[in-house]
Amino acid sequence: MIDPDRFLSDLHALRQFGASGVGKGVVRPAYSDADVAAREWLATRIREAGLMPQCDPMGNLFGLRDGPSLLMGSHTDTQPEGGWLDGALGVIAALEIARSHAHVSFVSFQDEEGRFGALTGSSVFSGAISQDQADLMTAKDGTKLIDARQTLAAGTHIDPARFTGYIEMHIEQGPVLDAEGDRIGVVTDIVGSRQLEVTLTGQQNHAGTTPMHMRRDAFQALSAVNAALNDRFRNVVTPRTVWTIGHVTLHPNASSIVPGRVSFSVQWRDADTDRLALMEAIVRDTIAEIAAQTGMEVALHGLRALEPVAMDPTLRAALEAGAEAVSPGAWRLMPSGALHDATNVARVMPVAMLFVPSIGGISHDFAEDTAEADLVAGLRVLA
Amino acid sequence: MIDPDRFLSDLHALRQFGASGVGKGVVRPAYSDADVAAREWLATRIREAGLMPQCDPMGNLFGLRDGPSLLMGSHTDTQPEGGWLDGALGVIAALEIARSHAHVSFVSFQDEEGRFGALTGSSVFSGAISQDQADLMTAKDGTKLIDARQTLAAGTHIDPARFTGYIEMHIEQGPVLDAEGDRIGVVTDIVGSRQLEVTLTGQQNHAGTTPMHMRRDAFQALSAVNAALNDRFRNVVTPRTVWTIGHVTLHPNASSIVPGRVSFSVQWRDADTDRLALMEAIVRDTIAEIAAQTGMEVALHGLRALEPVAMDPTLRAALEAGAEAVSPGAWRLMPSGALHDATNVARVMPVAMLFVPSIGGISHDFAEDTAEADLVAGLRVLA
Repeated sequence: MIDPDRFLSDLHALRQFGASGVGKGVVRPAYSDADVAAREWLATRIREAGLMPQCDPMGNLFGLRDGPSLLMGSHTDTQPEGGWLDGALGVIAALEIARSHAHVSFVSFQDEEGRFGALTGSSVFSGAISQDQADLMTAKDGTKLIDARQTLAAGTHIDPARFTGYIEMHIEQGPVLDAEGDRIGVVTDIVGSRQLEVTLTGQQNHAGTTPMHMRRDAFQALSAVNAALNDRFRNVVTPRTVWTIGHVTLHPNASSIVPGRVSFSVQWRDADTDRLALMEAIVRDTIAEIAAQTGMEVALHGLRALEPVAMDPTLRAALEAGAEAVSPGAWRLMPSGALHDATNVARVMPVAMLFVPSIGGISHDFAEDTAEADLVAGLRVLA
Repeated sequence: MIDPDRFLSDLHALRQFGASGVGKGVVRPAYSDADVAAREWLATRIREAGLMPQCDPMGNLFGLRDGPSLLMGSHTDTQPEGGWLDGALGVIAALEIARSHAHVSFVSFQDEEGRFGALTGSSVFSGAISQDQADLMTAKDGTKLIDARQTLAAGTHIDPARFTGYIEMHIEQGPVLDAEGDRIGVVTDIVGSRQLEVTLTGQQNHAGTTPMHMRRDAFQALSAVNAALNDRFRNVVTPRTVWTIGHVTLHPNASSIVPGRVSFSVQWRDADTDRLALMEAIVRDTIAEIAAQTGMEVALHGLRALEPVAMDPTLRAALEAGAEAVSPGAWRLMPSGALHDATNVARVMPVAMLFVPSIGGISHDFAEDTAEADLVAGLRVLA
């Protein structure tokens, strides 16, 4: 039997490791003292629950059952200014489920939030990258992953083949459930994303003496690219598709100088690989066209592509049945717009995911929160 | 009689003070050692020409005639990476004219390029600001103007009333003459400019999990403002009107985050005060409208306004006659899009200005240059 009070109590207990000065947020980067203390506390709880705590060399913390088992979990590391539920919820829910279910194992992946790479722990676990490749990664503060992971006791490789599947519960990190009044989201796909870095070079000029018709203004070219993309994407997207120009650097970025150069990112996400490819063609064609019209030189830097991952039909159907039982009529199927460790784990076993609402859609922020009733509803669906 | 060879020789001689390492540019900020040396050299040349060299407290260097005289000159200080003609041309041309014309005095204004303020020397000379106000100005390196000007010998106030007018020759610093094949520009007006700093605040969000219809994306709002301004300005501008969004800062400026805030400048320039005011109304209305449509909070920071200055009709007519005599059919009337000391001097006497072509329109750059024949043509018109 699951115990919702014990689950909530453990969730608040984990919050103490890395609680920030303001008492609200949680600061627990991968391999930090707070992260190590949290994992030691978790290891004790795992042992009390009757599972065998074990780290792998990367620092992923498992709670193992003998024989085949279903793996549940998430991650305990946080963003530099993280909320208290991002990762922690799925970890403590998995702990509670494992206590009462003999064939459920536990995991807290390492470096999900990307202090070193991105989803680094599950990348190594699933074989997407080797430990040697991960060891070369360096944090912004110059720390190397190979040095950081020495703070944890040496671990042994855990074979993914011992698990029959992986289920992760997570906060939505978006506004859909909260805005629509649903309490549970059953994930259909983790969307893929593609991103291009673009530099357009025109001609830097005096903003007083250069007539409009003689300018090659890089900001104007960017604005034209943006307007054309918004227009052309409308014909190919679904209501779930998103695209973002989130990074813009203008040169020389002075109010009295016609900008001669702009660098910017274009990122788009969708659950369908064909649509991602179609959007990429539109991005490339649009940039080439506008650049030709506005006299810009174009430099495109390395496409970053992550393929969409569909959830396993059998596991997903079980979550749908659980959602309808716990929260009849108040749950929905939805893609995950954010990346999760499940993307990697899907390489080596069936995976599924469950979301609970984020109040106001806020995440990666101290203000991140979820109603207690929704936390417990998620636990019940998982059970 | 003017001597074009002596004029060119002096122009190259001045270039030696503050010549950069690469041998091409000139680095001579206001009150720098190079600037002081250039002014000492000029004082000697002024005395040789039969004029009385004299500094005012600000460091403006005059070459005075007894009795009423027409003032000619420009400035010898440069941008941090300046070209060799910006300011220097007008100073050396004035020296050559003063040699052969008994009623012409000479001036090289101080801090035209704005190490401390903007057009600071002519601002103090014309009474636009007091010496005490100028003394409070501080350079980016922390130097105070009151300390910097101690590097020059103490000077005495020069009364503007002793001059009957002011004529300045300058390089165009823009592409019009070079592109149109004209060799002389007679300035009609120095255009005015207005500038607003704008901050739009929307909602920072996760670029994967926030659906397009729930976003309040500050970059999208900026792009919409830009497109609307381009559209609305078309109905009110002349071919000489210019407007620029030259400074953009996005927050948090990360490719996976929907931008929550953008700060940007909007600057517009025109020779007509009514048009400047009409454009300001369009800017304010457009920002308010787009902000309301896109859910942005608006903060507008201090309007910076500089009024247009019309050139004196009599002096301008004399320059037109000179241009037609020296370069028949190959000169034009044009506004000055850049600011010049003449803007300030117009407060206290009639002013006029003359332009020669900038090759490729390049200025404020080591590559700034003008054909020798055009330099001499300008000198002849001035004579």
